[in-house]
Amino acid sequence: MSDDSADERPVAASEAGEHEWPVELAGVTESVVTTLGPNERWNVAALGVRAPEGVGPATATTWGRTRTWRNFRERGEGYVQFTRDPVDFAEAALSVREEAEPVLESADAWVRCAVDRVADGEDGGTQWVEWELIPQDSEVERRVVPTTNRGRAAVVEATVAASRLDVPAYDRETLLDRLRYFESVVETAGSEREREAFRRVRELTDAEW
Amino acid sequence: MSDDSADERPVAASEAGEHEWPVELAGVTESVVTTLGPNERWNVAALGVRAPEGVGPATATTWGRTRTWRNFRERGEGYVQFTRDPVDFAEAALSVREEAEPVLESADAWVRCAVDRVADGEDGGTQWVEWELIPQDSEVERRVVPTTNRGRAAVVEATVAASRLDVPAYDRETLLDRLRYFESVVETAGSEREREAFRRVRELTDAEW
Repeated sequence: MSDDSADERPVAASEAGEHEWPVELAGVTESVVTTLGPNERWNVAALGVRAPEGVGPATATTWGRTRTWRNFRERGEGYVQFTRDPVDFAEAALSVREEAEPVLESADAWVRCAVDRVADGEDGGTQWVEWELIPQDSEVERRVVPTTNRGRAAVVEATVAASRLDVPAYDRETLLDRLRYFESVVETAGSEREREAFRRVRELTDAEW
Repeated sequence: MSDDSADERPVAASEAGEHEWPVELAGVTESVVTTLGPNERWNVAALGVRAPEGVGPATATTWGRTRTWRNFRERGEGYVQFTRDPVDFAEAALSVREEAEPVLESADAWVRCAVDRVADGEDGGTQWVEWELIPQDSEVERRVVPTTNRGRAAVVEATVAASRLDVPAYDRETLLDRLRYFESVVETAGSEREREAFRRVRELTDAEW
C-alpha cells in the first residue's frame, strides 16, 4: 500500500487528458463532495468513493433524492475532496451546509469529477443511483505523514449510525448503543477537534443517548 | 488542524538537540512501537501516543508486564512508527511479532524515542506505567494525502475489542457484538488488505463470533 513516488507526482494531472486521483483509492474512501445547487451555492455532503475493480473508473452511490443526487444529475460534476477535519466531515454527513466556494479550507486534496449515472435501483424503499467519477482536474494542497486517531474514526462511524436512525431496516437501540460507544472513544482518544465534531453530531441528530 | 508548512519541515530533526515529531499529534495517536528484547530482536507492538497537554513531552501508557514495558524499562527507548497498513497494525496489537530491524517497511515515518517512567499505578488488577516519549531521531519515509477508510478504522477498533476479551471489567457479549459489527464494516468498506487484516484478527483471537 505504500507509494514511494508520491512526492514526485505532478500536483495537477496533465492537460493532455489522463487525469488521475491524487490519492490511493482502496475499498471505499470516505470523502466530502461539493456540488453546485440551483441557488449557485456549493452543497457540502459526504460521499463514499469506491475504488475501481481492475480497470475502470471509481464509483459512488447516492441514496435517495439528496442534494448531491440532484446536483450530480443537473450539473454533471462535483468536487471530491479529502479532509482530515472531523467537524467538516460531520457537517457534510449530517447537515445542509452550503458554501460560496467549492473547495473547503481543510481539504488536503480535491478532484473535480465529471459524473455519469451507470446504474440505479431500489433497496428497502430507497432509490439509489450509482455514478462513475471521472477526474477532470485535481490539486494537492498538502501531503503529510498520515496518523490514526480512534476518535476521528469514531466521529465518522457516529455519522453513519446517526444517519440510519430513521431507516426502518436498522434497529434503533443498536444504533444508539453504537453512538454511546463512539462517544466514549472520542472522549478517550479524541482531541478537542473530535469533541467539537461529536457535539455537532449531537446537535444534528434527533435522538437522545 | 491543517499544516501548510508540512512539506518544508526538515525530514530529520536538527542535530542541535531539539528533536520534533514529524507528525501532528492530537489526542491519542495509534502507533506501532518496536523495542529491543533480550534476544536482540525487535518486538513489534501497538502503542497509543498521547499528545502533550500544553508544553511537555508526549506520553504513552503500557498495561501489564508486556514486552514493550520490559524493553522500555531495560533499554530506555523504542522506535515509534506511523503506518497505514492494517495487517501490520493488527499483528502489532494482537500477536508476538519480532523483527531483525527496528523499522517496518510500511512505516511512513519513525521516531526513535527515549522513554522515562513518569507515573505508575493499578487499574482493575492491571499494573500500568506512564512513560514520557522524548524524540531522539526521526525520519519521514513518505508524505501523502491522507484518506479515510472505515474498514481500516474498523480493524483498529476490532483489535481493541479483541484485546479486552479476557479483561473481567468488560462484558464479553458486548465485545463480541462489536467484533461482528466491525467485521461487517470491513466487508462493506475495506479493501483486500483490510480483509486480510481481519482474518489475522480472527486467527489471533480466542473467541467465536
